[in-house]
Amino acid sequence: MTLPATDRIPYGGDYNPEQWDEAVWDEDYRAFDLAHIDMLTVGVFTWSLTQPDEDTYDFTVLDGILDRAEREGRKVCLATGTAAVPPWLAHRHPDVCRTDFEGRRHLFGVRHNACASSPAYRRLATEMARRIAERYGDHPSVIAWHINNEYGGVCYCDLCAEEFRAWLQERYGSLDRLNEAWNTTFWSHRFTDWAQIVPPNMLSEHWRGPNHTAFQGITLDYSRFNTDNILRTFREEKDAIRESSDLPVTTNMMAIYRHLDYHRWAEHLDFASWDNYPTDGSPVSRMALSHALMRGLKGGQPFWLMEQTPTMTATRDYNPVKRPGIMRLWSWQAIAHGSDSVLFFQMRHSKGASEKYHGAILNHAGRTDTRAFAEIAELGAELERVGAVLLGARTPARVAVLFDWDSWWALEITDGHSRAVGYEKQVVAYHEALWQAGAVLDVVPVTADLTDYDVVVAPFLHMLKGDIATRLEDVARRGGTVVTTVMSGRVDEDDNAFLMDVPGPLGALTGVRVDETDSLPPETVNTVVLTRDGSDEVRSAARHVFDVVQPQGAEAVGVYTEDFYAGTPAVTRHGFGEGSAWYVATCLDQDGVDWVIRQALAEHGLVGPFAGVRDLEHTTRAIDGRRYEFLLNHAAETVTVAAPWEGTDILSGRDVSEGEQVEIAPAGVLVIATR
Amino acid sequence: MTLPATDRIPYGGDYNPEQWDEAVWDEDYRAFDLAHIDMLTVGVFTWSLTQPDEDTYDFTVLDGILDRAEREGRKVCLATGTAAVPPWLAHRHPDVCRTDFEGRRHLFGVRHNACASSPAYRRLATEMARRIAERYGDHPSVIAWHINNEYGGVCYCDLCAEEFRAWLQERYGSLDRLNEAWNTTFWSHRFTDWAQIVPPNMLSEHWRGPNHTAFQGITLDYSRFNTDNILRTFREEKDAIRESSDLPVTTNMMAIYRHLDYHRWAEHLDFASWDNYPTDGSPVSRMALSHALMRGLKGGQPFWLMEQTPTMTATRDYNPVKRPGIMRLWSWQAIAHGSDSVLFFQMRHSKGASEKYHGAILNHAGRTDTRAFAEIAELGAELERVGAVLLGARTPARVAVLFDWDSWWALEITDGHSRAVGYEKQVVAYHEALWQAGAVLDVVPVTADLTDYDVVVAPFLHMLKGDIATRLEDVARRGGTVVTTVMSGRVDEDDNAFLMDVPGPLGALTGVRVDETDSLPPETVNTVVLTRDGSDEVRSAARHVFDVVQPQGAEAVGVYTEDFYAGTPAVTRHGFGEGSAWYVATCLDQDGVDWVIRQALAEHGLVGPFAGVRDLEHTTRAIDGRRYEFLLNHAAETVTVAAPWEGTDILSGRDVSEGEQVEIAPAGVLVIATR
Amino acid sequence: MTLPATDRIPYGGDYNPEQWDEAVWDEDYRAFDLAHIDMLTVGVFTWSLTQPDEDTYDFTVLDGILDRAEREGRKVCLATGTAAVPPWLAHRHPDVCRTDFEGRRHLFGVRHNACASSPAYRRLATEMARRIAERYGDHPSVIAWHINNEYGGVCYCDLCAEEFRAWLQERYGSLDRLNEAWNTTFWSHRFTDWAQIVPPNMLSEHWRGPNHTAFQGITLDYSRFNTDNILRTFREEKDAIRESSDLPVTTNMMAIYRHLDYHRWAEHLDFASWDNYPTDGSPVSRMALSHALMRGLKGGQPFWLMEQTPTMTATRDYNPVKRPGIMRLWSWQAIAHGSDSVLFFQMRHSKGASEKYHGAILNHAGRTDTRAFAEIAELGAELERVGAVLLGARTPARVAVLFDWDSWWALEITDGHSRAVGYEKQVVAYHEALWQAGAVLDVVPVTADLTDYDVVVAPFLHMLKGDIATRLEDVARRGGTVVTTVMSGRVDEDDNAFLMDVPGPLGALTGVRVDETDSLPPETVNTVVLTRDGSDEVRSAARHVFDVVQPQGAEAVGVYTEDFYAGTPAVTRHGFGEGSAWYVATCLDQDGVDWVIRQALAEHGLVGPFAGVRDLEHTTRAIDGRRYEFLLNHAAETVTVAAPWEGTDILSGRDVSEGEQVEIAPAGVLVIATR
Repeated sequence: MTLPATDRIPYGGDYNPEQWDEAVWDEDYRAFDLAHIDMLTVGVFTWSLTQPDEDTYDFTVLDGILDRAEREGRKVCLATGTAAVPPWLAHRHPDVCRTDFEGRRHLFGVRHNACASSPAYRRLATEMARRIAERYGDHPSVIAWHINNEYGGVCYCDLCAEEFRAWLQERYGSLDRLNEAWNTTFWSHRFTDWAQIVPPNMLSEHWRGPNHTAFQGITLDYSRFNTDNILRTFREEKDAIRESSDLPVTTNMMAIYRHLDYHRWAEHLDFASWDNYPTDGSPVSRMALSHALMRGLKGGQPFWLMEQTPTMTATRDYNPVKRPGIMRLWSWQAIAHGSDSVLFFQMRHSKGASEKYHGAILNHAGRTDTRAFAEIAELGAELERVGAVLLGARTPARVAVLFDWDSWWALEITDGHSRAVGYEKQVVAYHEALWQAGAVLDVVPVTADLTDYDVVVAPFLHMLKGDIATRLEDVARRGGTVVTTVMSGRVDEDDNAFLMDVPGPLGALTGVRVDETDSLPPETVNTVVLTRDGSDEVRSAARHVFDVVQPQGAEAVGVYTEDFYAGTPAVTRHGFGEGSAWYVATCLDQDGVDWVIRQALAEHGLVGPFAGVRDLEHTTRAIDGRRYEFLLNHAAETVTVAAPWEGTDILSGRDVSEGEQVEIAPAGVLVIATR
Repeated sequence: MTLPATDRIPYGGDYNPEQWDEAVWDEDYRAFDLAHIDMLTVGVFTWSLTQPDEDTYDFTVLDGILDRAEREGRKVCLATGTAAVPPWLAHRHPDVCRTDFEGRRHLFGVRHNACASSPAYRRLATEMARRIAERYGDHPSVIAWHINNEYGGVCYCDLCAEEFRAWLQERYGSLDRLNEAWNTTFWSHRFTDWAQIVPPNMLSEHWRGPNHTAFQGITLDYSRFNTDNILRTFREEKDAIRESSDLPVTTNMMAIYRHLDYHRWAEHLDFASWDNYPTDGSPVSRMALSHALMRGLKGGQPFWLMEQTPTMTATRDYNPVKRPGIMRLWSWQAIAHGSDSVLFFQMRHSKGASEKYHGAILNHAGRTDTRAFAEIAELGAELERVGAVLLGARTPARVAVLFDWDSWWALEITDGHSRAVGYEKQVVAYHEALWQAGAVLDVVPVTADLTDYDVVVAPFLHMLKGDIATRLEDVARRGGTVVTTVMSGRVDEDDNAFLMDVPGPLGALTGVRVDETDSLPPETVNTVVLTRDGSDEVRSAARHVFDVVQPQGAEAVGVYTEDFYAGTPAVTRHGFGEGSAWYVATCLDQDGVDWVIRQALAEHGLVGPFAGVRDLEHTTRAIDGRRYEFLLNHAAETVTVAAPWEGTDILSGRDVSEGEQVEIAPAGVLVIATR
Repeated sequence: MTLPATDRIPYGGDYNPEQWDEAVWDEDYRAFDLAHIDMLTVGVFTWSLTQPDEDTYDFTVLDGILDRAEREGRKVCLATGTAAVPPWLAHRHPDVCRTDFEGRRHLFGVRHNACASSPAYRRLATEMARRIAERYGDHPSVIAWHINNEYGGVCYCDLCAEEFRAWLQERYGSLDRLNEAWNTTFWSHRFTDWAQIVPPNMLSEHWRGPNHTAFQGITLDYSRFNTDNILRTFREEKDAIRESSDLPVTTNMMAIYRHLDYHRWAEHLDFASWDNYPTDGSPVSRMALSHALMRGLKGGQPFWLMEQTPTMTATRDYNPVKRPGIMRLWSWQAIAHGSDSVLFFQMRHSKGASEKYHGAILNHAGRTDTRAFAEIAELGAELERVGAVLLGARTPARVAVLFDWDSWWALEITDGHSRAVGYEKQVVAYHEALWQAGAVLDVVPVTADLTDYDVVVAPFLHMLKGDIATRLEDVARRGGTVVTTVMSGRVDEDDNAFLMDVPGPLGALTGVRVDETDSLPPETVNTVVLTRDGSDEVRSAARHVFDVVQPQGAEAVGVYTEDFYAGTPAVTRHGFGEGSAWYVATCLDQDGVDWVIRQALAEHGLVGPFAGVRDLEHTTRAIDGRRYEFLLNHAAETVTVAAPWEGTDILSGRDVSEGEQVEIAPAGVLVIATR
């Protein structure tokens, strides 16, 4: 099973005409025509309409929406609509409501509010999915299923406690094994009956908040359980759909989202999709990282950009409008990294409730003569012109970044060393360095096949699972380069420390031994001097954590300049087999990370052709022997670069010859089909 | 029904002799004599004394206090004492205790702690009011009733849920109408039974806090309901009093207090009163705004300043003492803006509990030879000398500021645009500009008669209710000037967006169309250049929200200098009928607001004679054809101004001739009765 | 009953071999041999092992640990192990779990988690102590009992409510007396039945947090009750131990720990012990203050340093490693101030859970060739060489600092004046001044005998209990010097204000009268100029609170330079009897406090010989007519000082002659046995 069948990059997005009179629908379609919109996501929050009480189903409105879509020649991604329970369900079955981290049972309200352990929720959501698929599985407009919406959150109710215990029995088999995994002899915690185990929250193992737990083992397992438990509801809906439809199934994810380990979900998705709402202030490269992470779920198969805002968000403290050209730029960025769709939330501003100021294709006045609509219509026309050529194209990456939810969780719930070290921030920094260097890369789980990569970057890989240490050694042994860092190789899958020198099973590969790791407040800097083979020195401000490294074969390429470990190695390189391994023993600033990454890439000639041009993004997709080189200018100034290829920009139709000086305006995009 | 009958400005305040032996009372009255205190507020927190259990009433102590007051020739504002329930009541009827925003049922403690839906509370509080009025209604000292104390807060208990549902049924009649008002089709929220509705708090519709709700409609209605529900207890007590007394009834309010829409209370008060405890760091003008808001409750009728601290507060993080002269200055400021009383909390420092360090007339040593007491005694003498001449005097305002709780609530619970835009801060800024310009003004609800005003300022009037848009048009049509701003005209009474161009029904009046509103973090500034008719340019730092304005007849008098909308209008003026309307499309800094306001006032010659003298406050009261010009110097330096009137300073007795240079020391006050 | 019998300073600490296979124990003892470790604390968290269910006790593991210790010739401090309940106990008797300040009943988790009112906990913990003492009371290795661990926290459950009411009845006898003490007439709080009283927390008397209460009286009493209630469980365990053993009993305390008034515990301890985990950024002198406070519990008897980390902590946001030499320096500092032991937590890094990164003698690799282990082994050898000479030595102090938990609590829960004034910070500042001046001092309760002190410092003694005012007068009367400060002498033991001039009963002694206390935000400074008898002026930045002082016999030695009280006294000195009393009317910065303290010490020639050398700590212990002068260099630089004594450094064995220039490196320690 793969992506929905389309003959162009689908364009459109969430459409909620059920909120409006049908007269408004006429206006909608006039606008869709103007904007070349061919794809509508329907039914995401219709449960309270389609099932007004437990015994009544009423698809009148949905029938009308789908029939109109068909008449208008639009395709539909049809939702099961189970992401927000109707009032009657919460009222009649209070156990569908979640119990929060503070131990408080909630009442009806908000959305994404159902307990995944609730029998009532599971039964009724599954039944809804079954009926939707049965009714619309053969509808000519429907081309994909959209289960639920932005799954997330955590519940700590008694039903979840029961499910958690069952999950633990399945995982550990015996209490002895569980007691060993959680190291319960510490602090008198040996469990002698499964019933003694309660979910870890502020009423049990936690203090101060979700990252502060007395027992990392139970907290980590609850994150895994939560992922699996919510996934189960997805699987139940999917199975119900499969009773009557073979169309591809997805759910819209949130990429770098901590609560759910999407790698555990990957095999159950027909195709991945996600919603891109970048936080203001996060680097542009973080979106590229997110796209790559989502693409990595299905082994590089293209994904769908299921949502983005045409103009502005509403839930943030400050919600800027997207500047002129940015909506198009980011849409093309998604495509550049493997999206086979460009979809928005949503078609028309809601008139009330919390998203009434969230951007939409049509504002409250329904105008099609606004700046925002004009840009939307232009992009629609452009995508229509581009047609199908990019569909299915793959990313020919030689570089991999390992992304691991278990390490994320384990690192951030750990007591000790520094609470200021966030996994996401560190991964984003290493990825930013790769992005600025123009490396074509994948973001993959630790279980991925690494044999095709020249460079593997494993930042803050706190937990080593399975044979990952051996497989990283293999990368180096056959001539590749591995980059890893402080706080890596610390714990096994149970979050128990390796009873050996730090960095544990990565010691042989990295050629270092660490007896002590210093930690200092964020305002304290230890400058690291980086140099190699007589190259110019780069000075980088290191912070947070500082391994005191004793090389065991590795050479120092960076040294600390301060404190009692001044002069000792802060960054090392170790020849291993035909290749090498880098160990970054502290949190370098971006300049330092950039230096390390470019050194590692340079060993394989993988520094990109535009690495000297800041914020000019370059990546590649390829299909059927054809390569498409994407150039996106995220800088505020026009840049001029020499084209390293000969080809044609499929957006402008202009030919580009090799060595030609190409000018790219701010927010400019080129997609050069090379020859 | 109007104000209590007095023959001078009443002076005194809260008196709690029940906390002391009677020997102390003798000292109290000696001090009252020294300080010319003639008015005592009695019984505010005596419930646990006057009713030691559900079946026993005991007025011994109160009898003694009142009899002594009578013997001493003092007047009394007598409280019903229902603002803090006694322990036995909470213990016997736990439902009198509130359930908080987190959904937690409280136990006995603090004050202002009763659930307004509790049958036990309502029955017993009403009965207490009835008995107090019956017993003391004809007491020669008693001249007014003081119900409860500083009503406030919110309860979310099951009883309130029931009352809320009843209130909603009354308001909406049908669930269809409610579903439409709250736009419940969004996020699957259609209610099919009234019983499905639960109060909006952290366990239901809210996230992060009180201003973050998934459904603005229910949250807004809960604020309205809460106002009405608490008001009901006031009305019940008032009705009980009326069974045996016709004396005027009030309750002490808190002016710019968010939880209660005092405009809904106004008609039920005989006279308004409030407690002035300014937060350190808030501008002096905010007190003037508060006074005007309170005066506006009863159509300009004088109010009572029921409480202020003689020296310092106790509940703040830091509690400075009032500097020399400030207590007198602020007392006269209250009178200047319509207060017919000067009252304090309290007569004597409590010896224990949370207000033991709150300032009082008498400190713990009971001294009358302190700086604070000396100032109090001097003011008492001064007020005694002034006598009755100012009582009942009105404020001859030509300017109105619209103040609207619904807009306050709606603006601040909205998702989207900027969370940094606070209603109060913005209204304070517009009022500060008027205050510095010396405009004599009223602060009125949107339902007020606007026909007598030359300038109407409606800042951040997010919600347009009833015919206010039409009546603002009328102001301009007949030659007046309307000033309104960004975030105005956005939603109807249900908090649903107007399905038209921003600023909705204010579009015709303002002559602008807004397709997009940008929002940026508070640290980001867009400088606006203001100029008109060749006047010097004023540069103002704009922040937070930025309408991109397309004039529809309006002229630009201010333009943005930054971002993609640089050069477009940031402030406009639109000729309308005989008058005009100003639209300020962003949050200008105070200099910018000052400029706009002085332009608007200048159109009607309403810039005051001392507008050039910073922090010299000027306002006017008038009665029986006589005008009293108040001059209060809030600056740290002495100012010298030319008197524009001929008259007599009733405080010093000194005559002032027109054009004479008058010197006013810091904290100086003049009240010139003009001829 | 006094300290455990040892023939050297015991060295070692917490040992948890139950977490490991016995093969690991062999490695442990090899390391103990290398490190000269002779003392092990055992069994602190073994409850879930020693009692796997309510009816089963199993001491197999503990038997093995103790037998091995005996075979290896180690001494043992044996814990009762009751600081963390086992899962089955929480599951079977939910009332052992606490209810927190928010009113939430907790479930099983963390440690230090038992409600001290729980009958099940009390019964089973006591029984465990009984059985442990019975089984091991005669074990040849066991030399002391260690009850529970780091007692702390507060519970607010219904059982505690019951116990609290009983405690109140015992304290007050009648509700009338309680109503008077709590001043309940304020805010209608008169209790008419004991059952109406509920614990003061966020559901009753508190707002914002633990320091914000409507009634200080109940909150203060709950702190006292909580201390006594937890102490009862200690006493019950101790009594059970006494049934079969007379060995000395202790519990490891936390020194400056707010929740427990250790002065109420002192009489029940055979010897004091505590755990030294200084917060990064707190001054070195704070550890000296803590040591002195612990020594003060038992009238100057030496105490045990029960825990410190050999390298780093794990619970802080940032956990630096101890720099080279610091572990030894701080160990000797403990001895210098009266510790007769040097013990660590712990012997070996846990492999999992929240302390897996907490420092230990042996790291996860079990290495003995690390920097940390080398320092530990060197100190072990040094202590072994020093032997028994220091055991039992006393501190010959002429200076006392009063430390009073009631004043701490009362000051910080008070409404009014400034919330920025923390008791601990202020006491630390006054102690820091004494420490830098080299004063040999005691830290004592207000009930201590003061007759032997020349200087008594009573900073922020908010509450005056018993005859302390009289006894402070006695100090001055007989020629001593008393130093006290703003916020002192304010309330009686019920937290009710003294009905007299501030500083209440300290007025006669200090010779001042205060009518008003100003308070300002922390960023506002009023510079105080300090000078005396023509000495050079010192300028000190004063903050937070500012008494406006009217001298009643005192002379001004410091004056304010700002605000309306510029030129009035900020620091005064009052001749009283043969001596004097200083009153510091504001929060001076450290320079100002230093100046005052040195003036006071100088009156008695008590400024130490190294007072000019910053961060060179000096103190003295004496026994059997022999004095040991401790010199510890906490500065980053080497210092050279002239020895004022003749003697021998017992660490290096080097003789020192009087007047000789002695060089002390950073982290250097000298212990000069003088002749």
